[in-house]
Amino acid sequence: MEITDTAALIKQAAYALAAAAPETKNRALEEIARVLREHSADLIRANTGDMARAEREHLAAPLLKRLKFNERKINDLCKSIDALVSLPDPVGRTMEARELDTGLELFKVSCPIGVIGVIFESRPDALVQIACLCLKSGNAVMLKGGSEAARTNKLLAELILAAGSSCGLPENWLSLLETREDVRRMLKLDGYIDLIIPRGSNEFVKYIMDNTSIPVLGHADGICHVYVDEQADLDMAVKIIADSKCQYVAVCNALETLLVHRSRAAEFLPTLQQALEENGVELRGCERTRAVIPVKAAVEADWKTEYLDLILAVKIVDSMDQAIRHINTYGSHHTDAIVTAAKERASRFLRLVDSADVFWNCSTRFSDGYRFGLGAEVGISANKIHARGPVGIEGLLIYKWKLIGSGQVAADYTGDGARDFSHKKLDKECDV
Amino acid sequence: MEITDTAALIKQAAYALAAAAPETKNRALEEIARVLREHSADLIRANTGDMARAEREHLAAPLLKRLKFNERKINDLCKSIDALVSLPDPVGRTMEARELDTGLELFKVSCPIGVIGVIFESRPDALVQIACLCLKSGNAVMLKGGSEAARTNKLLAELILAAGSSCGLPENWLSLLETREDVRRMLKLDGYIDLIIPRGSNEFVKYIMDNTSIPVLGHADGICHVYVDEQADLDMAVKIIADSKCQYVAVCNALETLLVHRSRAAEFLPTLQQALEENGVELRGCERTRAVIPVKAAVEADWKTEYLDLILAVKIVDSMDQAIRHINTYGSHHTDAIVTAAKERASRFLRLVDSADVFWNCSTRFSDGYRFGLGAEVGISANKIHARGPVGIEGLLIYKWKLIGSGQVAADYTGDGARDFSHKKLDKECDV
Repeated sequence: MEITDTAALIKQAAYALAAAAPETKNRALEEIARVLREHSADLIRANTGDMARAEREHLAAPLLKRLKFNERKINDLCKSIDALVSLPDPVGRTMEARELDTGLELFKVSCPIGVIGVIFESRPDALVQIACLCLKSGNAVMLKGGSEAARTNKLLAELILAAGSSCGLPENWLSLLETREDVRRMLKLDGYIDLIIPRGSNEFVKYIMDNTSIPVLGHADGICHVYVDEQADLDMAVKIIADSKCQYVAVCNALETLLVHRSRAAEFLPTLQQALEENGVELRGCERTRAVIPVKAAVEADWKTEYLDLILAVKIVDSMDQAIRHINTYGSHHTDAIVTAAKERASRFLRLVDSADVFWNCSTRFSDGYRFGLGAEVGISANKIHARGPVGIEGLLIYKWKLIGSGQVAADYTGDGARDFSHKKLDKECDV
Repeated sequence: MEITDTAALIKQAAYALAAAAPETKNRALEEIARVLREHSADLIRANTGDMARAEREHLAAPLLKRLKFNERKINDLCKSIDALVSLPDPVGRTMEARELDTGLELFKVSCPIGVIGVIFESRPDALVQIACLCLKSGNAVMLKGGSEAARTNKLLAELILAAGSSCGLPENWLSLLETREDVRRMLKLDGYIDLIIPRGSNEFVKYIMDNTSIPVLGHADGICHVYVDEQADLDMAVKIIADSKCQYVAVCNALETLLVHRSRAAEFLPTLQQALEENGVELRGCERTRAVIPVKAAVEADWKTEYLDLILAVKIVDSMDQAIRHINTYGSHHTDAIVTAAKERASRFLRLVDSADVFWNCSTRFSDGYRFGLGAEVGISANKIHARGPVGIEGLLIYKWKLIGSGQVAADYTGDGARDFSHKKLDKECDV
């Protein structure tokens, strides 16, 4: 089938799914978990096929690890599905209620966005997580996984669709794309797809953002900063920087550029250098940094680089405001932290730094949906609208306005003898 | 100055404005109102110049009316500014607060989006309204008004900027573009502008949406429907349809297509025809409609047309589900209404119709920020993310996550002896 036809079917399914009863969605989620457990041997067999091919094609070890689908991952997935089932239904929640006039009541009610396009790499468990988050939030979903996981993904999608159908979900609420060419075409389907969530490398996310007019929820770079203030506790700063840089280097919330107030540089940088070099971190410094510690020179490009590696760029700044300007100019509006003992300085930093996550006296590595307590994470967004930072299931929701009348017309509220709007806050749920 | 340089300055101003104290913003708003009153004679003189040119150039009467800026409009504007001053500050509101662990507290705090690009036509009062909404919400703004209002707009922008400066607002928080070429270039400034709000004709809004990768908040078409259900009160239906179609034809929330359940068509359409023809409405019907009343034939294009005129397309449907499918297929996801006495049918319609505003037993003309009680209206959005339907000042806001620690690092929460996250809801405001 052509992808446009597929998309048209998904769109119709999305309309129906938006109105599905909470019980129907939960029953389908439970059935998905049951079927995954029941077919775990088949899934592991399919995955063994993918793994064998990936090994033959010399896939890098970390990717192989992500590709691997075993009993433990299936169990974890089923547990996370159980957790979703126990969540209150996010659709149909009354967010505002207002009487416009007697018998004319307005409700702002949460609803699904519609059709979500999700493109992800390697991990087959991501397919299940995303499909289930979309289902719980009433969204239809068009998925494209990495080709290295093709067999596992195909079986997962079949099992999920079959489980859904058996519980009365609309057909076609989920569709698995198979080729890169399909992805390219999907990016043009702005009449059918309402939001695209790309999960993968920077280049990949940038490619998506640059090649679609569909809204994209995500982030490309994660160029995170720590600023060590004039009034920083330096022991705390070393600990936070080491964690932000080294705890897991290949992730978007890892530290890439360190800014140090000039008044503390001489005292701080030698200790820091020692701590980081113990962890194998290469430092690259601005001129003034290099006057304090013997490190490689950082060039302009370093301030704009997400190393995702054991490298840290270091710059000495004259003031907190210079640090803030540097972050707003070179950063990626993802996660930036200040280390300071002065609350009013922290407050200024947190207000002026234009990033999704702004932290005071803690590691940038906390920037994560699970750690934030959001439950399942849809992704991390560096967007300035809709959802920002780690995004939970509420990122898959929007709202509609329901106005319940009893024959009112606008003409009654204009001209001579016009009725007035009461605009009275109502304390009730929409029951329509 | 090149527009890119202007945009860079606005971006810097936006960072500062985001952290401006509520009192500073309110003082500036009061000063803007004072200065507008003080300079009302100058403003009216500038506007007289614009009007004279517009008349020489034979601008249409409704546009002339919108262009006109007089004492009354200035007074209305100043009143709306006073209303903005009295609103609580929308920035810095704690939306969520959660303890992650002892001494590690997470706050989701509202903040401005950044730089808003607004393009509007004719009405100089729109410039003031938008500038003041942006200021109250802490956003910098790049504005382009209609060339017909050039003199009035120029003076307004100068007065607003001067008033702001005198109260300590950052310089360059507002900039007025002068040429169409500037607008074309502005659409490419995705590194500086965070959101574009176009207010104007369909073609204009479509042009903007198709020519920028910056998020756009707005709507192009407003193809609104009323569906007269099997169980409709027909007198109510006539009244609602007449109001939806005729109360103001040239607006996006006016009715364009009527859908009638076949079981009521014979009884209903003759009465409706009479009522609408009294109002000068031309009806265009599907084949089945024309078997009941003598009207012009509607062709496929009619279902996709926003007439903005005294024309109504009429289609007979076999079921409510067919009506819903028609609306979701041909509509513009703006405002659609059902007339029915049956609550469960209304409920199904409201859940299944994928539109920003879904109404039961009232006129589509209520779809409006003022009527909804949202206060000032930023625009009406047919987007599926961020903000939908009539959008008030909250459409100019997003949030950031502030995490306040005391030296915590992620490594403490993994591996052997890992600490657990408490993820406890906090009932407190962020004070940083």
